[in-house]
Amino acid sequence: MCEVIISKKIYTEDRAAAPRPFVVVPPSDMHRHLGDLLATEGGADVTFKVAGEIFRAHRYILAARSPVFKVELLGAMKESTATGDCIQIDDMLVQLFKALLHFVYNDSLPEMEVQEEAVMAQHLLEAADRYDMQRLKLICEDKLCNHLEVSTVATTLALAEQHNCQGLKEACIEFLISPDALEAVMVTDGFEHLTKSCPALVKELMSKLATRLYKRRKLKA
Amino acid sequence: MCEVIISKKIYTEDRAAAPRPFVVVPPSDMHRHLGDLLATEGGADVTFKVAGEIFRAHRYILAARSPVFKVELLGAMKESTATGDCIQIDDMLVQLFKALLHFVYNDSLPEMEVQEEAVMAQHLLEAADRYDMQRLKLICEDKLCNHLEVSTVATTLALAEQHNCQGLKEACIEFLISPDALEAVMVTDGFEHLTKSCPALVKELMSKLATRLYKRRKLKA
Repeated sequence: MCEVIISKKIYTEDRAAAPRPFVVVPPSDMHRHLGDLLATEGGADVTFKVAGEIFRAHRYILAARSPVFKVELLGAMKESTATGDCIQIDDMLVQLFKALLHFVYNDSLPEMEVQEEAVMAQHLLEAADRYDMQRLKLICEDKLCNHLEVSTVATTLALAEQHNCQGLKEACIEFLISPDALEAVMVTDGFEHLTKSCPALVKELMSKLATRLYKRRKLKA
Repeated sequence: MCEVIISKKIYTEDRAAAPRPFVVVPPSDMHRHLGDLLATEGGADVTFKVAGEIFRAHRYILAARSPVFKVELLGAMKESTATGDCIQIDDMLVQLFKALLHFVYNDSLPEMEVQEEAVMAQHLLEAADRYDMQRLKLICEDKLCNHLEVSTVATTLALAEQHNCQGLKEACIEFLISPDALEAVMVTDGFEHLTKSCPALVKELMSKLATRLYKRRKLKA
């Protein structure tokens, strides 16, 4: 016991004298290792064809990352997608499928221009919902929250409602609830689309607006 | 441009009023997904036999995480370890191989009792060096830095020297350099082993001790 006390004291004293840690553990490199695996396609056992472009991947990694891929690649459809077969995806942009695969392996979005981010986040949110990838969905929601603008907020709100994104929906409503913003948004095509496609949402918005107005009047009185 | 300015202002105002973020992105779940893959053994294509116990894994994941596994599983030895074959590992404890596989898939050490940590970290450091897994090696070095004791520091220093662990070596020397600690350590079997196996290290230690002593005298004078 004495030995331990001596040792710890000395250790502490010396650490205090030289605060630099002796060993620095770098952050996780797992995403880089798996990213390399995607890039080299080593051991890939499933092929996707998207708008004529071929992507090779690993069915058990896809299945581990997405419950929908799990069903599609290992479930009842497994026979029709046996090794060597090619899975055709017709309703997705090449760039989007590439970003989706990048996320599966790297656990992050690929680098992109700032002006691309909002549009890519919208498409990726739809893809994340389709493949039941909850973390990717939240990353896209977060990105869209930071890209809210008068010209796009109505369509973003419709998207949030359609894909059951509570946080993004709240952010859109908070954005819209200011009379100045709402007036500017109400003349956009997006808002017209919103009133037609999600009338219940417009009612919710009006109700929140009224509550906020009532609170302000009460504070002033 | 005006619209964007309006929108950002409103957004900022409302954020300030309700600082709670609309969307909270959880930390990476990749390690959990791959951990599940190890646990379920789905798609496993390589079998290891360690002290009679069977472990099933994925050769391309092992290869992505360790350059040595890459050579062993995909290089010249590939033919002898074709699917279905079993790789016998004779010189490793079951618990250690289990922890190694756990790290490959989960990117973390398995849970263990505090009193097990130091011994497991020593063995895992050797395994990490053998399979060239640099981050695991640094994690073990860091753990051992925090477990330095009079009774074990000499053997830890010999281990650090043997496996070229600069940080751990420095931590051991800093620990030993206090005359109180050194005197206590010098009567241990570990120190006797150290003087025989790494005489150069003992010289280095004496030199550092002399320098430190000289500095102290200079400060006092």
